[in-house]
Amino acid sequence: MRTIKHFMPTKVVFGRKTIHRIGEEIESLGLSTEKVAVICGKSAVSNGYVEIIKKHINGKVEVFDIVEPEPTVEVALRVIEEVKKFSPELLIAVGGGSPLDVAKVVSVMLTNEGELSEFIGVPEAFKKPGVPLVAVPTTSGSGSEVTPYAVLTDRRRFKKAPLISRYLYPVLAIDDPELTVTMSPIVTTNTGVDALTHAVEAFVSKRATEISKLYSGKAIELIGRFLPRSYGNPRDIEARENMMLASLLGGMAIADAGAGLVHTMAHVLGVMYRVPHGLANGVFLVPVLEFYGLSAKEEIEEIGRLMGFEGDVYRVLEKLREFLSFLGIPKSLKEVGLTESDIPDFVNLVMEKKFLMGNLPRIPTERDVREMLKKNL
Amino acid sequence: MRTIKHFMPTKVVFGRKTIHRIGEEIESLGLSTEKVAVICGKSAVSNGYVEIIKKHINGKVEVFDIVEPEPTVEVALRVIEEVKKFSPELLIAVGGGSPLDVAKVVSVMLTNEGELSEFIGVPEAFKKPGVPLVAVPTTSGSGSEVTPYAVLTDRRRFKKAPLISRYLYPVLAIDDPELTVTMSPIVTTNTGVDALTHAVEAFVSKRATEISKLYSGKAIELIGRFLPRSYGNPRDIEARENMMLASLLGGMAIADAGAGLVHTMAHVLGVMYRVPHGLANGVFLVPVLEFYGLSAKEEIEEIGRLMGFEGDVYRVLEKLREFLSFLGIPKSLKEVGLTESDIPDFVNLVMEKKFLMGNLPRIPTERDVREMLKKNL
Ligand SMILES: [Fe+2]
Ligand SMILES: [Fe+2]
Repeated sequence: MRTIKHFMPTKVVFGRKTIHRIGEEIESLGLSTEKVAVICGKSAVSNGYVEIIKKHINGKVEVFDIVEPEPTVEVALRVIEEVKKFSPELLIAVGGGSPLDVAKVVSVMLTNEGELSEFIGVPEAFKKPGVPLVAVPTTSGSGSEVTPYAVLTDRRRFKKAPLISRYLYPVLAIDDPELTVTMSPIVTTNTGVDALTHAVEAFVSKRATEISKLYSGKAIELIGRFLPRSYGNPRDIEARENMMLASLLGGMAIADAGAGLVHTMAHVLGVMYRVPHGLANGVFLVPVLEFYGLSAKEEIEEIGRLMGFEGDVYRVLEKLREFLSFLGIPKSLKEVGLTESDIPDFVNLVMEKKFLMGNLPRIPTERDVREMLKKNL
Repeated sequence: MRTIKHFMPTKVVFGRKTIHRIGEEIESLGLSTEKVAVICGKSAVSNGYVEIIKKHINGKVEVFDIVEPEPTVEVALRVIEEVKKFSPELLIAVGGGSPLDVAKVVSVMLTNEGELSEFIGVPEAFKKPGVPLVAVPTTSGSGSEVTPYAVLTDRRRFKKAPLISRYLYPVLAIDDPELTVTMSPIVTTNTGVDALTHAVEAFVSKRATEISKLYSGKAIELIGRFLPRSYGNPRDIEARENMMLASLLGGMAIADAGAGLVHTMAHVLGVMYRVPHGLANGVFLVPVLEFYGLSAKEEIEEIGRLMGFEGDVYRVLEKLREFLSFLGIPKSLKEVGLTESDIPDFVNLVMEKKFLMGNLPRIPTERDVREMLKKNL
């Protein structure tokens, strides 16, 4: 048996209406609520979620609703600067992966000396725990509430800017599925496919463990059953609950086992063409699994069984393609903007990223990546 | 779906030879090793485990090898007093559940004001984190390395003295299955049946969650396959590995979902007749599940499937009885010392314990307990 490393220190409170327990849960952890910074985007305010949270906090609350989707380093720097002036004792992040990731970065940048750029791409570069952060996801995708990762976009260098630190785990995650019913079908797909990609990449990862596979396996099973239902019927609360659980478990799985080549490719696509993260994952999920092929045969067939697709690798990939297509994920890279002439740049950007390579069941050469792109153009 | 609470902040490093990584793992958590107290029993010294650990620690190490099995409050007080004089910055506990539990209590008693007696039986009574504790189990049973519990014996009041606090989680658990090959077949059974009881009680608990069931379900499956092998062939390292994983998962399961009536009854038996904890659990496991009966029908049948016993509740319990009997667990309470005339006292002691009652799928009356004892005498 391989060595198992497991670490996920966040306290998770999951369930309908748990948002109303945020005050007591924070108190039970002995955290101060005298000065609280809420970090979010505009929609968390307009949906009324920020108002609900404010009702349950006794101390002074200031709201920083300036996070945009796929946030850049510049946006993060601005939020850090603004929040620093307020010097809060607690942060609450509300929203999708974007405000959660920005808030995680704010948390550690408030307590660690140095420039943000020094910490990007360097695992465990932060030396001190951050200001305690409570994460309140409103989408079922990133699982960011239970991971040691945050991903920003570096537009100048045409790259994603990942941060990895054990100090990036929130102290508390409040996963209330009722907050996810406001997602449109498109956001439901994009975030749900992100969760699926986390679960699948963690499942086939070389760092997968007996523990991470409990999470990723269960997540895959739930997404197979409940993502089409959430997509087709946004108010189906049972489907929403199960998708949020899947997203949580997907996050727990990548916390231990890491993501893989789908994320690497999706990050490049995201930066080059501003394709939303989940959609970009969806476009590469089958091509990458096809590339892994026999190197991850057993795992892919097990993924198929968990999703209710019986058969060998080829059959599973065919069914997975149909599954994604039903959810509106494009079948070709052209549909998301890739052109033949961009392929060389795209290949270079993928090959520069050594980041997740240690997790892959099969390491691609430059030629492999080029062929994968051409084949799926 | 029920509300899910999940919290297990211990970093786990599991696998063969991981004991040799203890130094680097402690360092990677940024913990000081200048003054380290090792808390254990005599066998951890005579087996050479303490020596191995000392080799990997640079600072000053003092060894407190005075923990006995089923440790009393008095033993804990003595260890607290001795360790206090040394005022370590880090604790390392090596051994079975007993030294681990004592070290957990030492950890928080070094930093919290007050008498130990004030904290017994009062959930979350400790106000401060303890001195960081690294747990190195050498049996596959208690799962104490990943739980917020410690159990002492109060001989004067004829009771178990439980402690429950989020500050009782070790910061690091090193689960090296090679340290468990020195267990005799009897210790293998007793500790393995403790692990099975944790998994089963967590599985049928009213506080069971979608997350805790991932752990308990997997643990049950592993124990069904590997406990008889570990028992029959102590040097079977694959079986030892899987049993240690099962013990770890059993601990993670009760951390979230709690134990139940088997533990309550076993605690009384343990105090009254000095029956080892795991053996006491083994004696009550089937009687208690039989009492739950239809209140936990589906769960018991699922437990059966996980252990490879097909059939309805009655069939599963029959097979479970055979499974335990093969491992040398007595079939009657007489064999562990209970007499008819002790039953009234025994019943009173069980009924006094309100502790785990909230977890039970069926709450017993005084009469239920009496009949359970008579039937299994
Ligand atoms: Fe992702
Ligand atoms: Fe136990």
